[in-house]
Amino acid sequence: MARDPRATRRRGRPSRFDERREAILRGAARVFCRLGFDRASIRDVAAACGTSLAGLYYYTKGKQDLLCQIQRDCFERVLAGLEDRLRALSRPEARVRALVENHLSFFLANMDAMKVLAHEADSLTGRYRAPVDELKRRYVRIARDLVASLGPRRSSRDPAVAALALFGMMNWIYTWYDRERDGDADALARAIGDLFLRGVLGGSRRGGGRP
Amino acid sequence: MARDPRATRRRGRPSRFDERREAILRGAARVFCRLGFDRASIRDVAAACGTSLAGLYYYTKGKQDLLCQIQRDCFERVLAGLEDRLRALSRPEARVRALVENHLSFFLANMDAMKVLAHEADSLTGRYRAPVDELKRRYVRIARDLVASLGPRRSSRDPAVAALALFGMMNWIYTWYDRERDGDADALARAIGDLFLRGVLGGSRRGGGRP
Repeated sequence: MARDPRATRRRGRPSRFDERREAILRGAARVFCRLGFDRASIRDVAAACGTSLAGLYYYTKGKQDLLCQIQRDCFERVLAGLEDRLRALSRPEARVRALVENHLSFFLANMDAMKVLAHEADSLTGRYRAPVDELKRRYVRIARDLVASLGPRRSSRDPAVAALALFGMMNWIYTWYDRERDGDADALARAIGDLFLRGVLGGSRRGGGRP
Repeated sequence: MARDPRATRRRGRPSRFDERREAILRGAARVFCRLGFDRASIRDVAAACGTSLAGLYYYTKGKQDLLCQIQRDCFERVLAGLEDRLRALSRPEARVRALVENHLSFFLANMDAMKVLAHEADSLTGRYRAPVDELKRRYVRIARDLVASLGPRRSSRDPAVAALALFGMMNWIYTWYDRERDGDADALARAIGDLFLRGVLGGSRRGGGRP
C-alpha cells in the first residue's frame, strides 16, 4: 500500500510507468462506473485498457488494489491541487471558493473516478480501506477548518455539518450535471460558491425566519 | 407496473397485504443496501424477510420489480407527505422549509430505502425505470418551483441548480449522518434549511464577494 517504488513522477515529468498506470486507473474507473465494482471483472478492465491480464498485473495486485489506487489517486490529486491554491490566498471566503473551484474542476474532469469514489466507498475492505479513509478524513478536516474560519461557530452553523452539506452539493452533481445546460466548472463553482457562502455568512433576516 | 390491484390501503387503514408488502420492501431495501443490488439474490431477500421464495413471489415478480416497488413507494410517500404539508402553507420560505423537513424526516426514517434510491437509480431498466423516472422528475419540478417562488431568477441563482444543490445537501447525509452527533431530523432540517434559505435569499454583501 506504500507508494509504488516503480512510480517516479518528479516535478511534473511523469515516467512511462506513471503514464501507463494513469491510463489504467482511468480505464478501470470507466469500467467500475459502467458495470459497478461487484459486477466488473479484472478481465473487463484489461479489455477496456487494451492490455493482457499479465500486463495489467504489472500495475495492480487485483480489483481491490485497483479500486484503492483510484480512490487514493483522486484524493491525493484533489488535496495537492487545493494546497497549491490555498498557498496564495489568505481571505477566508477566497479560500472557501478555492475549495469549491478545485473540487468541482477536478470532479468534472474525472467524472468516472469521482462517481466510483461516491458509489464504491464501502467496497474497499481491510488494508485497502484504511489509507483511503485517512485521506478522506484529512480532506474533510481541511474543509471544516476553512468553513470554520468564515466566522464564529453557532449551533445552526456547525462548520462540520456545513462542510458536509457543501460536499453533498458538489458530489451529488454526478446525478444531474450536463455541461451544455449547466455551464462549465467555473460557472458551477460560482453558483455553488455563492449559494454556500451566502448561506454560511447570512446577513438576511428573512432567510433565518421560521415558518 | 400499475398500482397492484391487491393493494387496498384506504384512508390510512392498510390491509394485511399492504402491511406484508411494506415489510417485504423494507427487508429488500436492507438486503440491497448491505449487499448491493447486483450481488443480492432473490433468495437473500426471502431469507431476510423470513418467507419462502413462493411466498415472496406473491408480492413481487422478481428483483427488478422489487427495486422498482421500493423506489416508487419512496417517491410516492415523500410526494404525498410534501403535498400534505404544503396545503397548510402559503409563505414561500415556509414551503421550502416544509420540503426540507419532509424529505429529511422521511430520509432518516427510511435510510436503507433512500440509500438504495441514491445508489441504484441506474440499476432499473426498461419498463421498470420509466415510472420511477417520472416520479423523480415530478418531485424535482415541485422543488424547483418552490425555490423559484423565493424570488426572481438570476443567473447565479438558477432555481433548478439551487434545487439540485439542495437535494445534494440532503441526500449526501447517508454518507456521514450520525444521530448521536448530528441531532434528529428536526435539528438537521433546521441547519440545512437555514443554510439553503440564507444562501438563496442572500442579503449579505460579503457572501457574494469574489476573491
